[in-house]
Amino acid sequence: MRRMRLLPIIALSAVGSAALVPADASAQRPDAYRAQADSLIRAATADSAAWNRIAELTDRFGPRFSGTESLERAIDWIVEEMRADGLENVRTEPVMVPRWVRGAESAELVSPRRTRLHMLGLGGSVGTPAEGIEAEVLVVGSFAELERRAAEARGKIVLFDVPFTTYRETVAYRGGSASAAAKAGAVAALIRSIGPFGMQTPHTGGMRYDTAAPRIPAAALSMEDAMMLRRMQARGERVRVRLAMGAQTLPDVQSRNVIAEIRGRERPDEVVVVGGHIDSWDVGTGAMDDAGGSVAAWEAVRLMKRLNLRPRRTVRVVLWTNEENGLRGANAYRDAHRAELDRHVLAIESDIGTFAPRGFGFTGSDAAAAVVAQIAALLETVGADSIIRPGGAPDIGPLIAAGVPGMGLEVDESRYFWYHHTDADTVDKLDPAEVARCVAAMAVMAYVAAELLEPLPRGAPPAAR
Amino acid sequence: MRRMRLLPIIALSAVGSAALVPADASAQRPDAYRAQADSLIRAATADSAAWNRIAELTDRFGPRFSGTESLERAIDWIVEEMRADGLENVRTEPVMVPRWVRGAESAELVSPRRTRLHMLGLGGSVGTPAEGIEAEVLVVGSFAELERRAAEARGKIVLFDVPFTTYRETVAYRGGSASAAAKAGAVAALIRSIGPFGMQTPHTGGMRYDTAAPRIPAAALSMEDAMMLRRMQARGERVRVRLAMGAQTLPDVQSRNVIAEIRGRERPDEVVVVGGHIDSWDVGTGAMDDAGGSVAAWEAVRLMKRLNLRPRRTVRVVLWTNEENGLRGANAYRDAHRAELDRHVLAIESDIGTFAPRGFGFTGSDAAAAVVAQIAALLETVGADSIIRPGGAPDIGPLIAAGVPGMGLEVDESRYFWYHHTDADTVDKLDPAEVARCVAAMAVMAYVAAELLEPLPRGAPPAAR
Repeated sequence: MRRMRLLPIIALSAVGSAALVPADASAQRPDAYRAQADSLIRAATADSAAWNRIAELTDRFGPRFSGTESLERAIDWIVEEMRADGLENVRTEPVMVPRWVRGAESAELVSPRRTRLHMLGLGGSVGTPAEGIEAEVLVVGSFAELERRAAEARGKIVLFDVPFTTYRETVAYRGGSASAAAKAGAVAALIRSIGPFGMQTPHTGGMRYDTAAPRIPAAALSMEDAMMLRRMQARGERVRVRLAMGAQTLPDVQSRNVIAEIRGRERPDEVVVVGGHIDSWDVGTGAMDDAGGSVAAWEAVRLMKRLNLRPRRTVRVVLWTNEENGLRGANAYRDAHRAELDRHVLAIESDIGTFAPRGFGFTGSDAAAAVVAQIAALLETVGADSIIRPGGAPDIGPLIAAGVPGMGLEVDESRYFWYHHTDADTVDKLDPAEVARCVAAMAVMAYVAAELLEPLPRGAPPAAR
Repeated sequence: MRRMRLLPIIALSAVGSAALVPADASAQRPDAYRAQADSLIRAATADSAAWNRIAELTDRFGPRFSGTESLERAIDWIVEEMRADGLENVRTEPVMVPRWVRGAESAELVSPRRTRLHMLGLGGSVGTPAEGIEAEVLVVGSFAELERRAAEARGKIVLFDVPFTTYRETVAYRGGSASAAAKAGAVAALIRSIGPFGMQTPHTGGMRYDTAAPRIPAAALSMEDAMMLRRMQARGERVRVRLAMGAQTLPDVQSRNVIAEIRGRERPDEVVVVGGHIDSWDVGTGAMDDAGGSVAAWEAVRLMKRLNLRPRRTVRVVLWTNEENGLRGANAYRDAHRAELDRHVLAIESDIGTFAPRGFGFTGSDAAAAVVAQIAALLETVGADSIIRPGGAPDIGPLIAAGVPGMGLEVDESRYFWYHHTDADTVDKLDPAEVARCVAAMAVMAYVAAELLEPLPRGAPPAAR
């Protein structure tokens, strides 16, 4: 990753109360839009509107898991609210999404003492027989250790007690533990929850089955419980667990992507996408994953409307459905809009929590990176002036793959993975002032990218050359 | 509170490998015992023995709530282990303790949407009828607000959503909410859990009923859920909750205080008590509250034995039972030892978590404070050289009231109340090196206080004059 950070080109005081028209209307230079940027920043940070909206959305509807009525009711409410806000072309687009149902589930330590363990089944897992699976536990610290001890795994429940390093690295155990354990003859797989800190807090999340291995149930334990089982094994105690999971995968059902716009005044067919995903896991309320990103994108466009800042191109809010366990909304958006993707100037998503913004991770050409770095320089006052390469976010992945320059909002994510996919992903963890700065960052980046005389230059990002 | 901190009297290098005999054997000056102190510090910090013992105790027996078999089995195990360690006069003393049983319990938000709330009944609460209590919720932010809105409380469940300031201040809502609500005609009381941070983590703890008010059920919600209910009320939504609690108080049962010693070589009838409480709440494993303090005291004396540091007076480990919901062990110890309390030179307890030690809170005369401050100066290398006045800890309260100088180990307690009385009070939150420094602090303070030529001077503490 390379980090680009520009010094401010124009001192703020020089443009304090400039008119909302670029000094040089024909300029491609982003710093010509400082007055508009400052106006968006002021509006975004003037109140707690965005935080309040995240709170209302999450309080009203709770978790918004694919295949649930809560998700669809939340979408209905958002559509109504967006229309009331005066957003344009508010609509939904159908998406077939998977329907995994958790059912009743539990894990109990049977030996060396009986106690309930703190667990969450992993998304996509099969269930156990109704009476559960009781077996001895083999605790390993890595895939490599399981390979060395494969002979001990047969007929057991394998627990991967793997300390968190980075999400990218450790999450491999959420995805791959079931099949790795199954190949060694295990009857179920458990993992230490994927997170750096917990308070008996299990983390769910998606897992996958290799076609080559039997499908065995998989669940996450709290980090505390996983560490306890490892200590018990280290003392030479025989660890037995009973795992019961009612999980099942039902037929796909229909959900929707939400779309709303502020239409471009000169080139309405050219589009800057700004969004988040509206679905969440089935625990907590998905306040940071990703009600926050969804509301930040929505608020960004609402503020443009309110300030009468109609950009040259269209800015389109997209709230993707089913990011968490399928990415179906992201793929459906790409498919439904394939004909206009060459006029997608930029796609921005916030999906790492609306904490204190730092800037954007960007994937695109060097020439485009130079331009977005200049836009980011307008965000110095909200701390969001860094451009990190490469970068992106899950739902804009299909767009980036199709050649659209893409960026993910980057924030202080030091606590994001404390709460990620847990019951504790709730709005109180977010700070209204930080959320407001995320809105400002999304608004300024989207607005200026939509306003520049020429679209962002395309071309392969450096890594792809 | 006044904080005393002495500069080290003798440079460490001057006594590096001094013999384990005071330079001036007749000295009352604590700094004459630097060599012994350093020896205890080295032994305590050489390994993770204390942390491992906390882990084994809590892993083997889990929570150790008064009236449970787990507590009694843990006591049996400790007695065996203490004997194996070579501690002297290992024994138990009977204590009748209350037996409050939580039973099945739940709280469900019924309106404006249905969802399970994260709750724990408060210790001592009565239960609800079997079908539970369903009622509208009135959320208030303080006792004063309830008084102003008393007319609205009749027939409702009152939720005290009170932000945490300090434990001392905020815990008044755990103790008093039920009777305050009952006086206003409420049918049940809920509180925001008493803690500065949570991850949907309810905190239990003791409550009490005023004789003047009806006894209504009382429970704590996670801070997240309490804040959500308050937001719902602020939006004008009608909040309804169904609370079901199977709590009941059964007849008292017998438990035990654990006592073990290293007998004094010259004045065995004079006693320095060093201890913690062996019971815990019925959630988590009570690793910091107070397996850590119990083990720190036990380890302190084990190290004296191992190093053959037999002090002039007796050092007595006391592990009190039933601190959490009765303080019966503390009172029973005082009653059983009333005849020798005038020969109790000092009583030390650790009950605020075995985090990085800072020193001791002390209650006693100015003359005694001056001496213990000099002993604390020997603990500069482990960071435990502060003496704060006044100070103490729950189980030595009855001894302090009887005139015994008393002190509580003081630590970095910044996270203690995150975990306090929750399912997340587990050994992984403790750092082996910090625990070892707590052992060193307890050992040095107890040893030198027992070794001084003259007992600590008695006399009323300044506040009592």
